[in-house]
Amino acid sequence: MARFFKNRSAVQGKSPGELIFIGRQKVDSVKIRMIQYDESFIEETAGDTLAEVLKNRKEECITWLDITGLHDTETIAAVGAEFRIHSLTLEDIINTGQRPKVEEFDQYISIIVKMMRLETSDEKIHSEQLAIIMGENYVITFQERPGDVFDPVRERLRAMKGRSRRSGSDYLAYALLDTIFDNYLILIERLGEQIESIEPMLLDNPGAEIISLINEYRRELHFLRASIRPARDAIRDFSRLESDIISPSTFIFLRDLNDLATQADEAMETYREMLKDQLDSYSATSGNRLNEIIKFLTVFSAIFIPLSLLAGIYGTNFAHVPEFQLRYGYYFFWGFLVVVATIMIIFFKRKKWL
Amino acid sequence: MARFFKNRSAVQGKSPGELIFIGRQKVDSVKIRMIQYDESFIEETAGDTLAEVLKNRKEECITWLDITGLHDTETIAAVGAEFRIHSLTLEDIINTGQRPKVEEFDQYISIIVKMMRLETSDEKIHSEQLAIIMGENYVITFQERPGDVFDPVRERLRAMKGRSRRSGSDYLAYALLDTIFDNYLILIERLGEQIESIEPMLLDNPGAEIISLINEYRRELHFLRASIRPARDAIRDFSRLESDIISPSTFIFLRDLNDLATQADEAMETYREMLKDQLDSYSATSGNRLNEIIKFLTVFSAIFIPLSLLAGIYGTNFAHVPEFQLRYGYYFFWGFLVVVATIMIIFFKRKKWL
Amino acid sequence: MARFFKNRSAVQGKSPGELIFIGRQKVDSVKIRMIQYDESFIEETAGDTLAEVLKNRKEECITWLDITGLHDTETIAAVGAEFRIHSLTLEDIINTGQRPKVEEFDQYISIIVKMMRLETSDEKIHSEQLAIIMGENYVITFQERPGDVFDPVRERLRAMKGRSRRSGSDYLAYALLDTIFDNYLILIERLGEQIESIEPMLLDNPGAEIISLINEYRRELHFLRASIRPARDAIRDFSRLESDIISPSTFIFLRDLNDLATQADEAMETYREMLKDQLDSYSATSGNRLNEIIKFLTVFSAIFIPLSLLAGIYGTNFAHVPEFQLRYGYYFFWGFLVVVATIMIIFFKRKKWL
Amino acid sequence: MARFFKNRSAVQGKSPGELIFIGRQKVDSVKIRMIQYDESFIEETAGDTLAEVLKNRKEECITWLDITGLHDTETIAAVGAEFRIHSLTLEDIINTGQRPKVEEFDQYISIIVKMMRLETSDEKIHSEQLAIIMGENYVITFQERPGDVFDPVRERLRAMKGRSRRSGSDYLAYALLDTIFDNYLILIERLGEQIESIEPMLLDNPGAEIISLINEYRRELHFLRASIRPARDAIRDFSRLESDIISPSTFIFLRDLNDLATQADEAMETYREMLKDQLDSYSATSGNRLNEIIKFLTVFSAIFIPLSLLAGIYGTNFAHVPEFQLRYGYYFFWGFLVVVATIMIIFFKRKKWL
Amino acid sequence: MARFFKNRSAVQGKSPGELIFIGRQKVDSVKIRMIQYDESFIEETAGDTLAEVLKNRKEECITWLDITGLHDTETIAAVGAEFRIHSLTLEDIINTGQRPKVEEFDQYISIIVKMMRLETSDEKIHSEQLAIIMGENYVITFQERPGDVFDPVRERLRAMKGRSRRSGSDYLAYALLDTIFDNYLILIERLGEQIESIEPMLLDNPGAEIISLINEYRRELHFLRASIRPARDAIRDFSRLESDIISPSTFIFLRDLNDLATQADEAMETYREMLKDQLDSYSATSGNRLNEIIKFLTVFSAIFIPLSLLAGIYGTNFAHVPEFQLRYGYYFFWGFLVVVATIMIIFFKRKKWL
Repeated sequence: MARFFKNRSAVQGKSPGELIFIGRQKVDSVKIRMIQYDESFIEETAGDTLAEVLKNRKEECITWLDITGLHDTETIAAVGAEFRIHSLTLEDIINTGQRPKVEEFDQYISIIVKMMRLETSDEKIHSEQLAIIMGENYVITFQERPGDVFDPVRERLRAMKGRSRRSGSDYLAYALLDTIFDNYLILIERLGEQIESIEPMLLDNPGAEIISLINEYRRELHFLRASIRPARDAIRDFSRLESDIISPSTFIFLRDLNDLATQADEAMETYREMLKDQLDSYSATSGNRLNEIIKFLTVFSAIFIPLSLLAGIYGTNFAHVPEFQLRYGYYFFWGFLVVVATIMIIFFKRKKWL
Repeated sequence: MARFFKNRSAVQGKSPGELIFIGRQKVDSVKIRMIQYDESFIEETAGDTLAEVLKNRKEECITWLDITGLHDTETIAAVGAEFRIHSLTLEDIINTGQRPKVEEFDQYISIIVKMMRLETSDEKIHSEQLAIIMGENYVITFQERPGDVFDPVRERLRAMKGRSRRSGSDYLAYALLDTIFDNYLILIERLGEQIESIEPMLLDNPGAEIISLINEYRRELHFLRASIRPARDAIRDFSRLESDIISPSTFIFLRDLNDLATQADEAMETYREMLKDQLDSYSATSGNRLNEIIKFLTVFSAIFIPLSLLAGIYGTNFAHVPEFQLRYGYYFFWGFLVVVATIMIIFFKRKKWL
Repeated sequence: MARFFKNRSAVQGKSPGELIFIGRQKVDSVKIRMIQYDESFIEETAGDTLAEVLKNRKEECITWLDITGLHDTETIAAVGAEFRIHSLTLEDIINTGQRPKVEEFDQYISIIVKMMRLETSDEKIHSEQLAIIMGENYVITFQERPGDVFDPVRERLRAMKGRSRRSGSDYLAYALLDTIFDNYLILIERLGEQIESIEPMLLDNPGAEIISLINEYRRELHFLRASIRPARDAIRDFSRLESDIISPSTFIFLRDLNDLATQADEAMETYREMLKDQLDSYSATSGNRLNEIIKFLTVFSAIFIPLSLLAGIYGTNFAHVPEFQLRYGYYFFWGFLVVVATIMIIFFKRKKWL
Repeated sequence: MARFFKNRSAVQGKSPGELIFIGRQKVDSVKIRMIQYDESFIEETAGDTLAEVLKNRKEECITWLDITGLHDTETIAAVGAEFRIHSLTLEDIINTGQRPKVEEFDQYISIIVKMMRLETSDEKIHSEQLAIIMGENYVITFQERPGDVFDPVRERLRAMKGRSRRSGSDYLAYALLDTIFDNYLILIERLGEQIESIEPMLLDNPGAEIISLINEYRRELHFLRASIRPARDAIRDFSRLESDIISPSTFIFLRDLNDLATQADEAMETYREMLKDQLDSYSATSGNRLNEIIKFLTVFSAIFIPLSLLAGIYGTNFAHVPEFQLRYGYYFFWGFLVVVATIMIIFFKRKKWL
Repeated sequence: MARFFKNRSAVQGKSPGELIFIGRQKVDSVKIRMIQYDESFIEETAGDTLAEVLKNRKEECITWLDITGLHDTETIAAVGAEFRIHSLTLEDIINTGQRPKVEEFDQYISIIVKMMRLETSDEKIHSEQLAIIMGENYVITFQERPGDVFDPVRERLRAMKGRSRRSGSDYLAYALLDTIFDNYLILIERLGEQIESIEPMLLDNPGAEIISLINEYRRELHFLRASIRPARDAIRDFSRLESDIISPSTFIFLRDLNDLATQADEAMETYREMLKDQLDSYSATSGNRLNEIIKFLTVFSAIFIPLSLLAGIYGTNFAHVPEFQLRYGYYFFWGFLVVVATIMIIFFKRKKWL
C-alpha cells in the first residue's frame, strides 16, 4: 500500500458524509475516557459506551472526551448526534487518510492532525490521525489506537499545575496541539542528528551504503513533511480564526504554536537541503576518486607498455638480430628499459599526473 | 499528436464562439439522458434528440441532463439555445483541449474538468473532458464518450441515500466533482504505490530499465498534473464564488473538495520529488559501481603488468643472459614473480584499494 | 547580435520619447490600410500616406488602421498627432525591442505584443513586434513588415460572420489578440510534438545529436517564453483594467484570453521540465552504458591477463625448465589455461558481472 | 547534539509557560547591569541580584537592564514579575532554541534574535540567543553568557555621541539590533571573501579538499541562514508594528534596519548559488580531466597494442617462418613497427584525439 | 576583499547616522557642478566648495547639484545641512556598499543605485554608487569619482531638446535613472551576446576553457544581479510613492522605467538559465565523448587480447608442440588470428559497439 495514502479506493462511490472506517482496525473495542474539571474540581470517568460515560457529565465543567478506536462507526455517530457534529466532520474523523486541517463550524472547530511519536521499543516513528473537536465547553479527541502523547497534559490537569485548570476548552485544545508539535520537533531533532552525523563520513572513503542512508532520510523527511506542513498551514488558519470559542488570551498561545510549526518546517527544509548537498558532495568525491584511480591505471600502464614492447621485440626469433650477439646486449637491454621508464616518469611528472 | 494539446490548429482563424468540434470523434451518435428528481420523485429519460428528451421536463424538479458525444454541434447548439448558454461556454464545451476552469455567468456556472479513470481492461489511464453547466434547478454534463464515473451518484439518487435528493443542483454538481476528484486520488495512489516500489529495487543491482521506469512515471505525473493542478485552481475559484446559485450549506462541501484537490496536488509534488531523488540515487549508485569496477580493473592489471614484463624480459633471445644458465634460474624467476605480486598487493592494501 | 535584445545601444543617450527606429528596416515603403465598418457598412482603403487614407474616414464607424513599416518615423509621428498618442507610446511602437505590455492612457489603451507565426516556407518561427492602439472607436495596429496572422479577422469582418461587426473597437482588439495567442499555442503544440518525439529515442542507443536537439528546443522555449510570459502578464493587466473603452460584455472574452495565455505558459513550463527530465535520463542512461562497457572491458581483460602471463612464463628461455621436457607438457599447459579461465569466469559470475 | 536544535526533548511534557532553562549553562552566576540615562544624566549600576540593582532605578530615565546568564530561573521570574512580562515571553527567553521573532504585548515588545560574532581567538562563529524586552521607558536584554557586541552602544551612551541620549527606549532597542545586524553582515562578508577565493583555485588542478571546503562553507551558510532569515522576518514585522511604544521618528531607522536584513539575506543567497556553481564547475572540470586521462590511455594503448602483437607473432617458435631467414628480416620488422605506429598516430590525429 | 561587500567592518560600532566614508578614495578633491535652468534660462557653475557654488543659486530655477567625490565628509555634511537631509540619508550616501533603495522623507526622496558602464578602454564593467536626492526644485547627485553616463542628459538640457527643460526636478531625476537603466540593458545585451556565442562552441569539441568561460559569465551575472535586482525593487517602490514632489505626468515615465527594470531582470534570469543549460549540455556531451573513447578502447583491446594470447602460446618453448612441426603451421597460425579477429569484430558489430 502506498505509504502516503490510506486506501482511498475504499470510499470510492460512497456518498460524502457517509461513515466508512478507513484504515486498519487497531483496537478490539472502543475505549472512552472523560475528564471533567473546573478550577476546584476534577473527575475522570472511563467506559466502553458513550451513554455510560456521558450520563454523569456536568455541563458547567470543561469536558475532555477522549475516544480511542475509530472502527466502531456507531459510537462515532452517537458522539456526532450528541454534540451535533456535521456529517462531513464525522467522515473526516474516521477516514484516517485526511490531510491535516482546521475547519470552523457554527458550534465547534474541528482540527485534524497527525500524532507522531518515536516508539522507544523499536526506534520507529509511529503515526496516527488525531481529530480534535473543540466546542464551547468541551474538547473531544478521536485516536486510532491506545497510547498517546497526552499524559503530561493529564498530569498537569490533575496537579492543578500551570494555567490548564483555570482556562477554557480552547486552552485545552492548545495544550494538546502544543504537545503534538513538541513531538514533531523532537522527531526532527533526532533525524537531524543522524543527518548531521553523515557529514564526517563523507570525508572518509564512503561506499554505496551512504547513498541508501541519505535516501532513507530523504524518505523519512518526505513522510514527516507530508504530515507537518499541512499541520502548519492548519495552525496558521487556526490562529487567524475569529471564533467566539477562542478567548483573546489564548491567541498569544496560538501565535506561539504557529512559531513552533514554522520552526519545524524550516528545520525540515534545511535538512532536506543538507541531504541534497551531501549527495552532491558524495558524487563529486566519487568522481574525484574515479579520476585518481584512472590516473593511476593510466600512468602505471603507460610506463610498462613500452617496456613490454621492447621485451617482445627482443623475444623475436629472427635469425639475424645483431643485438643478440653483443657481449653485453642483455645489460644494454636492461639499461634501455630503465631509460625508457625514466623518460615516461619524467613525462608524467611534467604533466602533473604523478 | 502532442499529448498535452488537442489539435489547436483546427480552430485557427475561426471566430471565437463559433462551434467546431475539436477532438477525435469517439461515439457514433449522441446519447442524452435526463434524471429529474425531488425529495419524493425520480424519473429517468433517455433519447437521441434533445427535443425528445426535454418534452417531459418538469421545471419544479432538479434536472440532470447528461449528454454523451460532442461531435454533433447541432445538439450542443440546441442545448445552448434552450438553456441560454453563452457562445464562449459552448465553444469551451466542444473544444476538448480546454484548461480546467470555473466561470460564472449570469444564469449559470460553467465548470470544465478532466474526468480520468483507470480502465480495468488495459490498466491505462483514460481521460476525457467533462463540462458541467450548473443552473438554478438544473445540471448539464457533457461527456466525450460513453462510460463515466458517475454511477455511484446515480445509485444514491435512485436509492434516496445521503443528502442528494434533498439538496439542490449545487449539491449535485458538488457530488459529481467529488467523484471525479476521488478518482484523481485513486490514480495518484496507484501511481504512488508503483513509485514507492522502485525504492527497494535501487538497492539491488539496477539496470537501465529502472531509468525508463522512472521516466515513464515522470511523464504520467506530468500528464496528471496538467489536468489536476488547473482543476485545483478551478475548485478554489469555485469555492470562492459568491453566486446565488450556490446555497450556503454547500460551501462546507466545496471547502472539503478544496482540501481533496490540495491533497492530490501535494501528493503529486511529493512523488515528483521522490522520482527525482530516486534518479539521483541511481546516478550516485551507478557512479559508485563504476568506481568499484575500475578499481578492480586497475588493481588486477597493476599486479599482472610487472609480472608480464618480467616474463617478457626472460623471453628475450640475447646470447648472454647469465640467469638462463643458473641451475635454479627458473625457480628463482618464479620466486621473483611471487615477491613482486606480493609487494603490489601490499601496496594496494595500504592504498585501501583492496 | 543578441537574440533576446534589439540593439539597445542605438537609443543610448536619446531623450525618452524621441522617435528613433530600432530594428532592421524590413520594408521599402510604409503601407497603410484602413477598414471602416459598422453593422451595415464596410469599406477598405489603402495608401502610402496617412493623409491620403484618412481623408475619407467616417467618425461614426469603427476604424481599423493598419500600418506596416516602422522606419518612417514621420508617418508614425503623424499618426501620433492625429490620434493624440503620448510620445512614450510612439517610442514604444518604433522601438521593436519592447517588453510586451498593456498601458492605459486617458484616450486609449496601448498593447505591445510579439506576433509569431511558423513560416511554412522554411519551418522557422518568425517574430515581429505588434503595437495595438485601441481608442473609443478605432484600433490602430503597427507591424514591422508585410504579412500577418489577421486574415481570418478580416474575412470575418467582410463576411459579417460572428459578432465582429456588431461589436466595438474593444472586441476588434480582442479578436486580434485572440488570433495572436492562438498562434502561440500552435507554435508550442508543434514544439511539444517534437519534444515528445524525443522520448522513444532515449530508449534506443542515443548519441550526442540528441543533446544538441534537446539544447535547441530549450533555446526555442527560452525564446518563446521571453515573448509569451510578459504577454500573459499584459493580458492579465488588460482584463483587470477598469477603462470606459472596454464594454462589460467584452470582459468575458478577455477572461477567455487570459485562460489561453495561462495554458500557453503552463504548457511551456511542462515542456521545459520534460526537456530537463530527458537530459537527466540521457545522462543516467549514458552512465549506465559506460558501466556496461567498462564492465565488459574489465571482465574480458581480467580473464586473459593471467593466461597471457602463463604463456609469457613458458616463453622464457631458462635452460632448466622441467615442464618443457614433459611428454605432454604442452597439453598440460593448455589444460592449465582452460582451468584458469574457468575459475575467472566463475569468479565473475559470482560477482554478478557476467 | 543536532546543531540546529537545542535539546528540545527537555521541555517535553512541560506546561507551556513553565520556566525551564534550555541550553548549556555558560556562566557561574547571573550578572545584572543597569544603565540609566536621559539627555543630561547617565548612571551605571551592576550587581548580582535584581533587587540590589533595581533599588536605585529612576523611573523618569530610560533604563537599560542587561542580564547575563539564563540558568537562574528565579532571577528571570523576578524580572518577569517586576516588569509584568507574560509567562510565554519568559519561557522564550530561557529556552535558547527559539526561532528569532518579534511579538507585541500590551506593555512591551519582545524581540528574540541570535547574537553572532567572530571570536578573534579561534576564528569561530560564536552564537547565542539574545532577548530584548522593550517597554515604554526601559529596555531589558537577556544574554546567555558574558561578552557581547554592544560596547560601541555603551560608549556612545556614555559619550553623549549621536542621538542615543536624546531618544527613547525604542531608539536604544534599534541601536542594539543595528549592532547585531552589522555583525551579521561582517560574518557574511568574511565568509564571502573565503568563498570568492575558491574561484581561482578551480582553474588549477583541484583535488578532493576543495569539495570539503565547499561543503563546509555550505554548512556555515545553512547555519547563518537559520538564524538570519527568521531575524529578517522578525525585523520586517517589527517595522510594521503600530505600537505606541515606537515613536514615528524611529520608523525611519527601522526601515534602514530592514534594508540591512534584506541585504544580508540576498548576500547569503548569492553565496549559496556561487557555491552551487562552483561545485558544478568542479564536477564539469573533473569530468573533463577524466576524459583527458582516458583519451591518453586509449591512444597510448592503441598505438602499442598492434606493435606488441607483431612482436608476439615473430616470437612464435614455428619451424618454418620464412621471415626469420630473411637477411634483413629484423630490420624489415622494425620498419613494419614504425609504419604501423605512424598509421595509428595519423588515425588519432584525424579523430582529433591527439 | 569580497566583491559583493564594501568593507562593512569599517562602520562596526559606529553610531547609525555618523558620517564615515566607506570605499576606496577615488578622487583627489571634491568637484561640485551646478546646472540651473528653467524653460528660458540655463546656467552652469562649477567649483571646489559648496559655498562657492551655491552662492549664485536661483531658488526659482530647477537646480541640479552634482557632487563628485565622497571622501570629504565635511562637504557632504554641508550639503546635508543646506538641504536639510536626514543623517541616515547622508550615511547611506557615503557608505558606498548600500543596497539600492528609494526612501521617502518629508522634504525629499532619496534614491541609491549603482551606476554601471562598460569602460571602452579595458572592456571591464565599472560600477560606482550614485545617490540622487530629489527635492521640490532641486536634484542632488553624489558620485564616487569623475566620469558618468549623464552627458546625454546634460546635452539635452543645454539644447532645450525633449521635455527636460519644461519639466520639474522629478523629470530630471527620472531622466538620470532612465540613463542608468539604459546602461544596465546595454551591459546585459553585451553579456548576452557573449553567452549566446558559447552555444555553437558546445557542438564542437570543447575543452575545459568553456567551463571557466561559463563560470566567469555566471559571476558577472551574479554581480549585475546584486545591483540591478534591488534597483528594480527600488524603482517599483518609487513608481508607487504618493509624494507631492512627483507630478502626475511623471508617473507615466516611471511606469516605463519600471518596465525597463523588469525587462533587465527577466533577461538576466534567462541568461542565467541558458548558462545552466549550457553547462548541463557540456556535461552530457562530455559524458558522451567519454563513452565513445572507452568504447573504442574496449573494442580495440578486446580484438587484440586473444590474438596476443595466441602469439604467446605459440611462443612457449615446450619441447613437444605438434603445431610447430607442421609444414604450414605458421600460415595456419595467421589464418587462426584472422578468424579470431573476424569473430570479435562480428561480435562487436552485433553489440552495436562498432
